[in-house]
Amino acid sequence: MAIEHPYLLFLGDAPDQLAAKTAQGVLQWRPDWCLGQLRLPGCQADLGLPDLSLEDAAAQGAKTVVVGVANRGGVISEGWTDVLEKAIETGFDLAAGLHSRLGDVPRLRGAAEAHSRSLYDVRHPSRGFDVGDGKRRSGKRLLTVGTDCSVGKMYTSLALEREMQKRGMKADFRATGQTGILIAGEGVSVDAVVADFISGAVEWLSPANDEDHWDLIEGQGSLFHASFAGVSLGLLHGAQADALVLCHEPTRPHMRGLPEYSLPPLEDCIRLNEEAARLTNPAATCIGVAVNTSALDPGAARRLLDETEQALGLPAVDPVRDGVGPIVDRIQSGAAGRLAG
Amino acid sequence: MAIEHPYLLFLGDAPDQLAAKTAQGVLQWRPDWCLGQLRLPGCQADLGLPDLSLEDAAAQGAKTVVVGVANRGGVISEGWTDVLEKAIETGFDLAAGLHSRLGDVPRLRGAAEAHSRSLYDVRHPSRGFDVGDGKRRSGKRLLTVGTDCSVGKMYTSLALEREMQKRGMKADFRATGQTGILIAGEGVSVDAVVADFISGAVEWLSPANDEDHWDLIEGQGSLFHASFAGVSLGLLHGAQADALVLCHEPTRPHMRGLPEYSLPPLEDCIRLNEEAARLTNPAATCIGVAVNTSALDPGAARRLLDETEQALGLPAVDPVRDGVGPIVDRIQSGAAGRLAG
Repeated sequence: MAIEHPYLLFLGDAPDQLAAKTAQGVLQWRPDWCLGQLRLPGCQADLGLPDLSLEDAAAQGAKTVVVGVANRGGVISEGWTDVLEKAIETGFDLAAGLHSRLGDVPRLRGAAEAHSRSLYDVRHPSRGFDVGDGKRRSGKRLLTVGTDCSVGKMYTSLALEREMQKRGMKADFRATGQTGILIAGEGVSVDAVVADFISGAVEWLSPANDEDHWDLIEGQGSLFHASFAGVSLGLLHGAQADALVLCHEPTRPHMRGLPEYSLPPLEDCIRLNEEAARLTNPAATCIGVAVNTSALDPGAARRLLDETEQALGLPAVDPVRDGVGPIVDRIQSGAAGRLAG
Repeated sequence: MAIEHPYLLFLGDAPDQLAAKTAQGVLQWRPDWCLGQLRLPGCQADLGLPDLSLEDAAAQGAKTVVVGVANRGGVISEGWTDVLEKAIETGFDLAAGLHSRLGDVPRLRGAAEAHSRSLYDVRHPSRGFDVGDGKRRSGKRLLTVGTDCSVGKMYTSLALEREMQKRGMKADFRATGQTGILIAGEGVSVDAVVADFISGAVEWLSPANDEDHWDLIEGQGSLFHASFAGVSLGLLHGAQADALVLCHEPTRPHMRGLPEYSLPPLEDCIRLNEEAARLTNPAATCIGVAVNTSALDPGAARRLLDETEQALGLPAVDPVRDGVGPIVDRIQSGAAGRLAG
């Protein structure tokens, strides 16, 4: 059921580079999957990929057109329909992570049926899940957790996958949000699952595996976020994580979208996440901290990371500036998955 | 948008009394709303209400036929369709709390449209919700929490409503599950809400109110239940509860549906629920324990309640055997809603 690659990245009429950040993320983490970009007149984004027509991309072997652009409201623009319909007729599947669904556009649904192509609306779960059963399963799992939303949980999970695979370890990124799903080619948008099935969906996403295999599960939200903590707790329980990595953005003035709420101290965040995770895996341990220091100058970033390491007794890295080597060292040393005191 | 009463309780072809427990619950808590029962040939349940025809019930003023019976699989039986369709034609609305929807039965949907009647499928939210905003709102709120699922949270919430209203206090039960919604005439089945909107749905359900008004919010699941804790945490955050009442069933061998999981100690359950609740209401305090002692003889029940009171320093009652007076005493004494140490 995975989305087939290679991809042709559709940037539409993106008004600026930021509007194409989904495509940018896919290209950053799966450069081998991205053959080219498809832009409409007026498009102000450019990924530096070859501009390919549908026919050229098909001839080069591309399988799926990925809508890598978001516009206001997260809808499928009317101006995109002609080219997306033609993509289906050319033989492509379509994938998008928008609020509105490709499958709700009659012309696209009709074309997909007529040409037996698939439409992937990755923000919307396309299957049901069982209620979580909490049964211990084989394999190792790491979950990224956060002090807040949008603090680098997806990036950190993907950086861990890359570093672990580089070292020859068995590791797979498991996506729980729309951009992550386009990067992985599969996954579950857990915040769109019906509440009763959050942990069950995560159990399905990260099933039993080899004992030395690591699933690197993309976290969502924060136990301290008054809007979304239920999703975060279901993720913790379903993941049965051996290892947690705490993600943080140190300059944020308040919880995202909640001006009345300040960010939790890192110590509290680690303690509460470990306690919650230990319900389904008593060995769950936080093994590192990933800090997004992009708003700090390099000297201030270094000082903050050093202070954080000292205060918590855990490796603290900026995955973008430094990579995640020290955290993977800790995984290899066997620090994760030991029964914690 | 509330379900109109009085009700005619439809028991269908219930194979035994237990199959009609939804109707039993509605009758127990809203006897004034229940004019009669409607039974099909072979029905083995009896609520002791007058058996009324649709015409007689309509003549006596009944507004809604409530499907108060559950069969295997939670579907609308084919054998019920004739009489339910006739109910609509007679002028009734229909309400049901089954997994399958009245609105998915073409004959019922068609009749409801033709006669401008409403179909209430209370297990399925019929509206969207905003993301929770965590903003402080006026009024007082009490949430029942549990060591496990199905330990008496709905019963305790309703017993508190009855006792508080008897004492002249402003208090309203707020329903979060299907039986509760049929009893309240309105509410939200929170475990069926999309995960991102759990706390937002609870904020909607228990809006700002008079400062001396109490919403008594029906809890769901348990922070210690590996399948459903996400729902419970979203409820805690959305409720912004001043007071928590812990519900417990002392003879359960393991968490419901999870043979590998034992029940948490009451102290741990109180501590973790208070800590989570204080994110959105720093004054949240557990003010009492409701124990379902139905499996114990009266002497053993008394001893257990006494021991629990002593160990926790909180009133411990069996709401069925003793009522909830001591917990309401504590609310009236102002113990709830004070900033806890």
